[in-house]
Amino acid sequence: MNTPLPASVVSRRRFLGQLSATGALALAPRALFAAGAPDKKLGVALVGLGSYSTYQLGPALKLTEHCRLAGVVTGSRDKGLQWAKAYGFPETSIYSYDTMAKLADNPDIDVVYVVTPNGLHAAHTIAAAQAGKHVICEKPMANTVAECDAMIAACKAAGVQLMIGYRLHFEPHHRELARIGRVKEFGPIMQMDGANGFRMGGRVWRVDAKLAGGGPQMDMGVYIVQAVCMAKGEAAPVAATATFDPVTRPELFNEVEEGIRWTLEYADGAVAHGHSSYNENMSWFRAEGPQGWAKIEQFGYSGQVLTTSTGPRAFPPVNHQAAQLDGMALSLLHHQPSIVPGEMGRRDMVITEAIYASAKAGGKRVEVKA
Amino acid sequence: MNTPLPASVVSRRRFLGQLSATGALALAPRALFAAGAPDKKLGVALVGLGSYSTYQLGPALKLTEHCRLAGVVTGSRDKGLQWAKAYGFPETSIYSYDTMAKLADNPDIDVVYVVTPNGLHAAHTIAAAQAGKHVICEKPMANTVAECDAMIAACKAAGVQLMIGYRLHFEPHHRELARIGRVKEFGPIMQMDGANGFRMGGRVWRVDAKLAGGGPQMDMGVYIVQAVCMAKGEAAPVAATATFDPVTRPELFNEVEEGIRWTLEYADGAVAHGHSSYNENMSWFRAEGPQGWAKIEQFGYSGQVLTTSTGPRAFPPVNHQAAQLDGMALSLLHHQPSIVPGEMGRRDMVITEAIYASAKAGGKRVEVKA
Repeated sequence: MNTPLPASVVSRRRFLGQLSATGALALAPRALFAAGAPDKKLGVALVGLGSYSTYQLGPALKLTEHCRLAGVVTGSRDKGLQWAKAYGFPETSIYSYDTMAKLADNPDIDVVYVVTPNGLHAAHTIAAAQAGKHVICEKPMANTVAECDAMIAACKAAGVQLMIGYRLHFEPHHRELARIGRVKEFGPIMQMDGANGFRMGGRVWRVDAKLAGGGPQMDMGVYIVQAVCMAKGEAAPVAATATFDPVTRPELFNEVEEGIRWTLEYADGAVAHGHSSYNENMSWFRAEGPQGWAKIEQFGYSGQVLTTSTGPRAFPPVNHQAAQLDGMALSLLHHQPSIVPGEMGRRDMVITEAIYASAKAGGKRVEVKA
Repeated sequence: MNTPLPASVVSRRRFLGQLSATGALALAPRALFAAGAPDKKLGVALVGLGSYSTYQLGPALKLTEHCRLAGVVTGSRDKGLQWAKAYGFPETSIYSYDTMAKLADNPDIDVVYVVTPNGLHAAHTIAAAQAGKHVICEKPMANTVAECDAMIAACKAAGVQLMIGYRLHFEPHHRELARIGRVKEFGPIMQMDGANGFRMGGRVWRVDAKLAGGGPQMDMGVYIVQAVCMAKGEAAPVAATATFDPVTRPELFNEVEEGIRWTLEYADGAVAHGHSSYNENMSWFRAEGPQGWAKIEQFGYSGQVLTTSTGPRAFPPVNHQAAQLDGMALSLLHHQPSIVPGEMGRRDMVITEAIYASAKAGGKRVEVKA
């Protein structure tokens, strides 16, 4: 993967790499790629073959230009064999969770994408890093800030990159929201409000506290936290106040919250309200500054709509997962820092811990420590 | 106003009156009026000539078919003279707050519309009732449930009707929302969420606790409470949990809250979330049941949009205040109970007091007593 590049390609790639590292362009990622294609497709191994791998990441890896599915880590050998056949990688690239150390001997795998339940992210990320592989870890990064620290340290020690699966940083409507926040198009954003949730049908691992680390705030609320930080130029808030929703389905929500509402405060007086729930279908974020506002609808895999006080802003739809995987592959190929590094995942977990601490303390205002 | 009506008119009017009393029709109120016009335009006196009277109610009273502006109660004789000239009523129909008892001697005035600050509603309503006039009281009904009780008792003792200025009960998109809730088109509504607020520019009577009774919950939150009750067939919730927003502008919000978030619970497990604020522009309500959802945008004086899981539902726009005034006049002319009686205003104040009690107790769950 560190193949030297011809000089003419390097300069162009450095330009592209800088763009992807700063996230400064409000273009569909595909527009970046069109200008120059790297020599090699990075080999990606998926760790955990649940529904997100099966229905999103696997299919996306058939669309990517800069990476391809090169292996899997799974608890089911049978499943691994099916994937090897479907995606055309050798059976020797099927691993189980307790043989991840052997990834070190596989030059065909450059990046390991951890897609297991939240509570297992730290162990699998650290195992991948120790095998010398770059790591993409699905959001939320982990169950605790302490785990985030261990993951960042392990990747640093191994000299590999750690990136968080924040696909919306590669989605053009959200990139435009981030741009509006960064350049202060509407002045500094001062009022924010957002909600993300769905009505959960039945018991899944996401209501198991040990595996999920928490309820909808972990799974859905992190999108609102991400949007808030985008609107504030990636700055972190200074305080959190939160309240749990009442529990209307105790048979499902006896370990994690059914819903939670929170308020984040910024040092400049900006305030952000958020609501995440497993009892209500909702998906939107709105940011307002003294000179205007922007509202984005849909944190999901498609259907984003961005409206602003100066009119709607539409962008061609992209496959989120393919855009994310290609964007990440490019930053690796160009030796550029990721726009969604482990530190960003840790920042969001610090905020999330403050939100939970406040709700557990009955709504007491809790400082967000950097 | 109790002029006997010819029999042929009575039966048609009784039909129309029943419709307006049950609120069963999802038609623009104008459609009701077209079928038959009463003989007399009721005389309305406005109490308080602030911006709502000046820019909304006064102009609306030029559009109404069943009532007209017949007098004013104001602290400024000069203002009263200007209004008498502009609206063509005699100078003898200009009153001051301390001469309201003399309204009793004015047969040209049938209804008194109280448009003073919230904290004065009770005194002015009771004065109007004691003068033998029907009363429309602007929302919120009063500062406390105790005041509501006194207002209802005074109107009952005087044998006059008491109606609350809930204009959206006469607005077709909201009437459709109420119909959806009443007939359970999407099954019983189980999840509700809404927000109403604006960014307040400077100090007005609305941030004075004595005059306003509270902050945005009194002024803006009552619209969400109203929408929640509409979606639940006008039933009241059983519990409230609430949290005040942080205060970012203490120079404005040193007597009343800057914002407040709340959750209302129903006996059937339905949950409603609301957020009202003087720091954020927002205006929407969404209700979902097992078979679908409805979302209404805009609690303001125009621009309502109703979307549902089965598609958008559009209605011709109406002048809210004219529709409300004509709807109220019709119920008086037809001797029908109002669809927005004092008891409804009291119900909302009971809910509001529970919301405030919870927020003041740091988010403790508070029962809503019927």
